[in-house]
Amino acid sequence: MPSPPPGLSERDFQAALRELEGVVGREWLFATDEDVLLYRDGYSPLWGEADERFASAAVAPSSVEQVQGIVKVANQYGLPLYPISTGRNLTYGGAAPAYSGSVVVDLKRMNRILDVSARDKTCLVEPGVSYFDLYRHLRTNKIPLWIDTADPGWGGLMGNALDRGGGYTDIEFRDHFDAHCGMEVVLPTGEVVRTGMGASPQAKTWQLFKYGLGPWVDGIFSQSNFGIVTKMGFWLMEEPQAALQVSVTVPKRRDVVPLVDTLHSLMCAHTVPSQVTVASPLMAGNNPELVRLRGSGGASDADWDRFAANAGGAPFWAATFVYYGPSKVIAAQWEHTKERLAGIAGVGFRETASYKFPLTDEQAEAVADKARYGIPSLNLFGSRTAPNAPPLEGHMDFSPMIPPHGEELIALTDYTGKVYADQGFTPSFVAGMMFHPRTMICFHAVPTFRNAADNARTRKLFETMVRGCTERGWPIYRIHPVFQKLGMEMFGRDNGSLHRLHETLKDAIDPNGIVSPGRYDIWPKRLRGTQA
Amino acid sequence: MPSPPPGLSERDFQAALRELEGVVGREWLFATDEDVLLYRDGYSPLWGEADERFASAAVAPSSVEQVQGIVKVANQYGLPLYPISTGRNLTYGGAAPAYSGSVVVDLKRMNRILDVSARDKTCLVEPGVSYFDLYRHLRTNKIPLWIDTADPGWGGLMGNALDRGGGYTDIEFRDHFDAHCGMEVVLPTGEVVRTGMGASPQAKTWQLFKYGLGPWVDGIFSQSNFGIVTKMGFWLMEEPQAALQVSVTVPKRRDVVPLVDTLHSLMCAHTVPSQVTVASPLMAGNNPELVRLRGSGGASDADWDRFAANAGGAPFWAATFVYYGPSKVIAAQWEHTKERLAGIAGVGFRETASYKFPLTDEQAEAVADKARYGIPSLNLFGSRTAPNAPPLEGHMDFSPMIPPHGEELIALTDYTGKVYADQGFTPSFVAGMMFHPRTMICFHAVPTFRNAADNARTRKLFETMVRGCTERGWPIYRIHPVFQKLGMEMFGRDNGSLHRLHETLKDAIDPNGIVSPGRYDIWPKRLRGTQA
Repeated sequence: MPSPPPGLSERDFQAALRELEGVVGREWLFATDEDVLLYRDGYSPLWGEADERFASAAVAPSSVEQVQGIVKVANQYGLPLYPISTGRNLTYGGAAPAYSGSVVVDLKRMNRILDVSARDKTCLVEPGVSYFDLYRHLRTNKIPLWIDTADPGWGGLMGNALDRGGGYTDIEFRDHFDAHCGMEVVLPTGEVVRTGMGASPQAKTWQLFKYGLGPWVDGIFSQSNFGIVTKMGFWLMEEPQAALQVSVTVPKRRDVVPLVDTLHSLMCAHTVPSQVTVASPLMAGNNPELVRLRGSGGASDADWDRFAANAGGAPFWAATFVYYGPSKVIAAQWEHTKERLAGIAGVGFRETASYKFPLTDEQAEAVADKARYGIPSLNLFGSRTAPNAPPLEGHMDFSPMIPPHGEELIALTDYTGKVYADQGFTPSFVAGMMFHPRTMICFHAVPTFRNAADNARTRKLFETMVRGCTERGWPIYRIHPVFQKLGMEMFGRDNGSLHRLHETLKDAIDPNGIVSPGRYDIWPKRLRGTQA
Repeated sequence: MPSPPPGLSERDFQAALRELEGVVGREWLFATDEDVLLYRDGYSPLWGEADERFASAAVAPSSVEQVQGIVKVANQYGLPLYPISTGRNLTYGGAAPAYSGSVVVDLKRMNRILDVSARDKTCLVEPGVSYFDLYRHLRTNKIPLWIDTADPGWGGLMGNALDRGGGYTDIEFRDHFDAHCGMEVVLPTGEVVRTGMGASPQAKTWQLFKYGLGPWVDGIFSQSNFGIVTKMGFWLMEEPQAALQVSVTVPKRRDVVPLVDTLHSLMCAHTVPSQVTVASPLMAGNNPELVRLRGSGGASDADWDRFAANAGGAPFWAATFVYYGPSKVIAAQWEHTKERLAGIAGVGFRETASYKFPLTDEQAEAVADKARYGIPSLNLFGSRTAPNAPPLEGHMDFSPMIPPHGEELIALTDYTGKVYADQGFTPSFVAGMMFHPRTMICFHAVPTFRNAADNARTRKLFETMVRGCTERGWPIYRIHPVFQKLGMEMFGRDNGSLHRLHETLKDAIDPNGIVSPGRYDIWPKRLRGTQA
């Protein structure tokens, strides 16, 4: 039997579980050791250690009323809950709670697609709706709308949006939180609140206009623990006539500066509509000279360009992106893009894929870079950090945000490359990805293991980079639950006033501190001293 | 001498004012009758009546520290404050407080443009920076960035954004709150909080990435009273190569359905980048047959089309919008637009203006439709609701939000036309304006007067339309302070749970209830009973 949450007697815990059974029915309360292992974080950097976070039970409601019932029981017993939608975000903690002993509220049964409007290009979904679910619904019903999927696509719209994840299609949809329109939330007190226009009972605009009247509260329900979101609207992309995927390459290391400046300018003007990935194919692999350069912390451009020349003249950087729209508009945009980049000596332009929509099932299956066309897939699970590297046991994402400047990308790769090398790891930096209008996310995979000694090294690496990147001006945009306290410390200006505001909100909205204690380092009053 | 705020003795009020003088210096505390009249709402629908809202004094700080000092004094004495940035939003209450007796915190002296980055296309400003200020700064320094101005342009970026106002250029900038990136707020307790990446002391991304880590709190500071915002970042538009302004006309009343559907689809795909205004030139004026049709509440399409034919064959609807970008992309987008709209019998396409940028000062001065090119102006003050109507003494904006559907626009004009007529007013509906990606704002001017009898009629008209539009599914997106209680009642689903959440937040963030009591009907605990 799993242990009860801290501070709860075995007897009260069992009584609470029986009441939860009363709410959801016996078959939807999971409380054996085998049950709760299913909610374990398979990539945990604390795997098998005393501090690893475990659920004490899980409960799977099927309706808003059942969620309210669960919250009521939790308030009565002081039972910590940990709501998850699909719980599939493995590199950010998966389904395991931030606070050991929490009862996972598994929302997978609430998986109804409540509304899709082809005319308005919107949908309204429940927490358990996955990217695959919505994609299949649209294809089956021949609705000419695209989703913007996370990659891999097995997660769900709501969880990813609330965690502020990103995708690959047009700018309006890539920032998944920004692409939402309207929420329904069960507050920790059990009250149901609809946000935006949803608070006006007859409104025809709940999925059309974000704000409603008065303060716009939606943001406080992202990356937090202020309620259980039970419905969420999203804006969807109308299927374009056509798409053209291109690759722009530049030969020298410092060419990334004009490359990124120009692409950023074109993105801000919507001339380049899609996510832009800036990668250095040269920087992957384990060639000894490469390893030396990456670990040096500041090899010169000349050294790097010499290395590139010896590597057979492959371009140093490649930018990948897609145009969506009418064919003649695409042609004009691509032509203008080439003109704007023509000043970089040795720049290369290549059209790598081209589509007319709609695609047949066979054509959709054959698309190489599926996420760029709103097609969810699990292809990423086949990838590794480097061509010849062993498969990872697991990893955490480490993603500092930098200004969209080539010199920042170079400085970042210099810095993290050296940290990885100094601490005995192979650098894992994959690419700078322009998901958002004015920043570049720099993904790094930090490996996790199934043994404590290696995980201690990994945790040290992770902490070093979080602190080091913050000091250099590049804070992260989300972080694994095990490191959320560290993460929020990095946002500690004015003596931690933002964090204090979070906890002020927590005390007001969740007076008994029952929803996801500790998530993003927001502790309810009753646990604050003991956990800090 | 102005009266002290309710509940404060004359003696305590005078003591508080002396302390405020100590914070800002004698010349920046305004406490005579003449002083506070400057903060009167010239368009008040309660003009000269007992309930008209008056300030008791005003105080003009020059720094964040002085704002903190003011807040400290207010907490000590229970002094209600009413912060304004430029206070110029006349149709939404101007500079007058929501709660009579409040001390206006006039932030006009804090008018520094703290940062402009041409490379990143961002700025950071203080509350008093007006659209004119920033426009002049950019022109003087030849920075190739555009602002997105409200119209008229005498207000300021911050106040307009916090009120969730809108503009006319590209979609990324028109929703002024959405175009902000990063805030600094003085909380009612005096603590300073920087939001988003600003909470990370060395971050290079405060104006580049909106969210930071943990809950995103920015939204709660819009249309609310939870703090005094002292800095705000914004995204700016890179000056395009060219622009083409066009007009698309359709002959029959029901043609507005395919017209709006198609333009909405093109807007969602960024093929049409600017705000789209859909107006009916035919529906302005006071021709007796027009007045009869507008007041009928549901004249048939045939009746209307007959009226249009008799009016000399002018088109029924005209849509106005602008393409921004490289000339060849604009040409392809306009061509595609025409193809998509070609199916509407009798559709007309006209190019009404065309520009290459940058403009000389003379060219800029000659631009007719300035707000569409980021040029602030006061031209709107020369306009009237109907060609031969007398100038208004004042007016309030009444702006229901409808889905972007032509039939909703028709239903709305039928409904509000009849309400105006039934209550003895000339209908004022101007246009359906697609500021946001998936809604149309339908502006109406509701006249205000300088006499109580007419204002009583106006208040009845306003209330009737607020309630009637809400019942029909078209709630408003902001509302004059005198009607904020009514407005929030329209967002009363689940027994008013959203409003209760607002007041829960208020009690937590502003325990003494000193900032803008009553704004958007959010009352602090100490005033709640007395004001409801």
